[in-house]
Amino acid sequence: IQENVPSKLGMVLNFLEYNLRSIGQVYFCNNPFTGLLFVVALLIQSTRCAVYGIVATITANGFALLMRFDRGLIASGLFGYNSILCGLAIGTFSSTAKHADYTVEMICSSIITSLLSVLFFVAMAKILNQYKSPPFTFPFNFAAIFFLLGSGSMLNIQGIQVIEPSLPSNGDLDQPLITVVNFFLGSLRSIGQVFLADNIISGGLMLIGIGICSRYLAVAAYLGSLIANGLAVLIGSNNGSIEAGLFGYNASLTLAAMALFYVPSLSTFVLGILAVIMTVLAQHTLIQAFAPFGLPVMTLPFCVISLAMILMQGTTDIIISVPLPSITI
Amino acid sequence: IQENVPSKLGMVLNFLEYNLRSIGQVYFCNNPFTGLLFVVALLIQSTRCAVYGIVATITANGFALLMRFDRGLIASGLFGYNSILCGLAIGTFSSTAKHADYTVEMICSSIITSLLSVLFFVAMAKILNQYKSPPFTFPFNFAAIFFLLGSGSMLNIQGIQVIEPSLPSNGDLDQPLITVVNFFLGSLRSIGQVFLADNIISGGLMLIGIGICSRYLAVAAYLGSLIANGLAVLIGSNNGSIEAGLFGYNASLTLAAMALFYVPSLSTFVLGILAVIMTVLAQHTLIQAFAPFGLPVMTLPFCVISLAMILMQGTTDIIISVPLPSITI
Amino acid sequence: IQENVPSKLGMVLNFLEYNLRSIGQVYFCNNPFTGLLFVVALLIQSTRCAVYGIVATITANGFALLMRFDRGLIASGLFGYNSILCGLAIGTFSSTAKHADYTVEMICSSIITSLLSVLFFVAMAKILNQYKSPPFTFPFNFAAIFFLLGSGSMLNIQGIQVIEPSLPSNGDLDQPLITVVNFFLGSLRSIGQVFLADNIISGGLMLIGIGICSRYLAVAAYLGSLIANGLAVLIGSNNGSIEAGLFGYNASLTLAAMALFYVPSLSTFVLGILAVIMTVLAQHTLIQAFAPFGLPVMTLPFCVISLAMILMQGTTDIIISVPLPSITI
Repeated sequence: IQENVPSKLGMVLNFLEYNLRSIGQVYFCNNPFTGLLFVVALLIQSTRCAVYGIVATITANGFALLMRFDRGLIASGLFGYNSILCGLAIGTFSSTAKHADYTVEMICSSIITSLLSVLFFVAMAKILNQYKSPPFTFPFNFAAIFFLLGSGSMLNIQGIQVIEPSLPSNGDLDQPLITVVNFFLGSLRSIGQVFLADNIISGGLMLIGIGICSRYLAVAAYLGSLIANGLAVLIGSNNGSIEAGLFGYNASLTLAAMALFYVPSLSTFVLGILAVIMTVLAQHTLIQAFAPFGLPVMTLPFCVISLAMILMQGTTDIIISVPLPSITI
Repeated sequence: IQENVPSKLGMVLNFLEYNLRSIGQVYFCNNPFTGLLFVVALLIQSTRCAVYGIVATITANGFALLMRFDRGLIASGLFGYNSILCGLAIGTFSSTAKHADYTVEMICSSIITSLLSVLFFVAMAKILNQYKSPPFTFPFNFAAIFFLLGSGSMLNIQGIQVIEPSLPSNGDLDQPLITVVNFFLGSLRSIGQVFLADNIISGGLMLIGIGICSRYLAVAAYLGSLIANGLAVLIGSNNGSIEAGLFGYNASLTLAAMALFYVPSLSTFVLGILAVIMTVLAQHTLIQAFAPFGLPVMTLPFCVISLAMILMQGTTDIIISVPLPSITI
Repeated sequence: IQENVPSKLGMVLNFLEYNLRSIGQVYFCNNPFTGLLFVVALLIQSTRCAVYGIVATITANGFALLMRFDRGLIASGLFGYNSILCGLAIGTFSSTAKHADYTVEMICSSIITSLLSVLFFVAMAKILNQYKSPPFTFPFNFAAIFFLLGSGSMLNIQGIQVIEPSLPSNGDLDQPLITVVNFFLGSLRSIGQVFLADNIISGGLMLIGIGICSRYLAVAAYLGSLIANGLAVLIGSNNGSIEAGLFGYNASLTLAAMALFYVPSLSTFVLGILAVIMTVLAQHTLIQAFAPFGLPVMTLPFCVISLAMILMQGTTDIIISVPLPSITI
């Protein structure tokens, strides 16, 4: 009988676990230890961003519990993985300081944006449920765009101008070649860039964190980044962005999603590569489409392509999808 | 037997009632007397706009009858509430004159845009039906955007430039404080701004009109406007817009929708406040997103947030939704 | 028994037929001879564009076969009609040369964009299936926008600047009247413009091609173009664009879709005219909306209005829809 009545400490530990799983779920890792390592990596990158992210995650999971949303989904961390990203985005785009410059406005913004991402998560999950597809990080992207664009017309909530709004230009000028070392460092940074972290140590720790949950997933995550960066060099993308890991993180998530949602096979591998190519194309598209608004593309390229790829399930028998409940997304 | 054969006069009276209910439905009021008071308020604001709006409403309901769409929906005014707004928008954005400057082009535009809003209403209602959600005023917003943007490249159908297209800027300059009186007047104007009316008497009459239908709804409508304006002052929105009632009308609609679609309770109230906050954020976002196109946000912020809020039904038991047929939207 | 084992030659002939039907399906013609005539018309317009289009079509159908997608749909040409347009768009927007200037980058781009359009086709078909609506050429438009916008930020894959990005302006200056001859030539060019061909002979051959499949469809296609151009003159659209056939091709597709998806009747005719008017409005809207991105509207106006029109089925009994399987889209 007593086992059914969780102690106060037990409840706190449960809640802690939900939050850690939420953080792990950003890379599809339903594993609290992965989440813990991600937190360490985030603290190394920027304590302020990490704190904003944690505040947002706690807000989302607390709200989900208060709303009595599906407990199984909460326990798997699915109500928080968008929120941590909201907090990290607000942290990254509100100040360039790594470990200082906390403001009340931005903590409030993290809370509101986190709640908005939960709202979008519930709405999208309800619509996509019939297609057996998760909302990926669409809710984060939408909520973060709401904050980034919206705060621009709020006198008392001012972030930094991420990108100067401009009409899209037709291509960069000539640029120097990227070095092999920078290429591989960029591929590792890509793992961190999923969490808006450009610190190479953070990226490395995160890759280890994914490996704790699943080595197969870690290989997919790094391979996706590597292939995307190779393709970016080939087509002549901006080298500075490649070195910063900005062309690999979406593709890394896409290949990880393909690895997770489809049973491993040669077909899955080939389609995964194709999905990576599409993701790189989608990223270039969104960079241009968002130029007039001064918005970063965040993880939208991954979301668009992965959603299309997952919607494909059932129309072909050459790749077999993993049933959604068993992966708890 | 005779009762089943409506007389010619009876048919005309029925049709009149459909149109008045349509006008009331803009504020969720399925009540012809509310609609009548709204018409009076609109005539005070601008006879020309009111006439365009009435032409659009009659067009929509006439078309719906000819198409033999669901008679219950027609009788509840659901085929016309988007159309009246289309006519009002065309009236407001085609000339600054209040009681003159009628043109054939704009009357034709009101008719075409009204029909387009019906087309979008049917399409959206069909898709949203399975999620037990109404299309809100999405059809009006889409149809009005079609007219506003489209007419810009038509040499013979020229409105006034509502907003000069520009790349979004990062915040306004410092501005003087808003006075308490202007704050409360702005909150009342917000009720009228749902119908693009900035006349304070129009706003007041409309609030009375809502009260005729439901005092609970009228309180929600004004409270939503009041909270939104308070928040707008807090975050530093443009004071001129607050005074004009432009930051309250979307939130007013949102809180009215929450009051209507969910059974009254503390949870509904708290979530309603949250929805109001989200609506204010959404409005700031759309102002920036629409800047390059010179488009006003109209009631899109309300639509986006209310749709998400209504999609939430069934995922939580702390707020109980009112079944859709019983509210006839 | 032998009949069930297709010979190698038979397989090649089957595959050829799938591709020809794909090309015919752009104008809803499930007919290989129509496809063949379209190819001839495309070769007259530009051998390079035609080759890119054929490469894209073969890619799409080959991929669909490899993926073992529904064979019935493949045999009806439904996996290729978006792809041919992708190849033609890449051909048209990457060089002004008609019969030269082949590049490896653009052939690769045609292949990738073609695959992306298949991906979008499968995803959209899955979602729209429950509403008994086809994805029309949405997949082509999305995939082509991905290429056009995306390649702008790729140093090594440079097309020509289709339209200089600019903020939307409020109307053109005064312009000379269009001549009657140019008006009718523009209406015929519109048929070709569906395939991005402005050659009058190509347009004429294509109209004949449609007539081979169905004279009723050919009449609808030309009539849609004619009415749209008349309306464009009336509202004061750009005369140069009317003469080039740019205001007629979307409406031509819309009326063809109405003719195909609804049983012929007076109601269908009247609603078809209404759909044409809406399509012309939608085109003007999208021209303005796409101005900051320098994007052409392609066939999006047709897609938006036709989708709404087809979603209407079942809500009214004054127009009767043709069941989707029997028209194999």
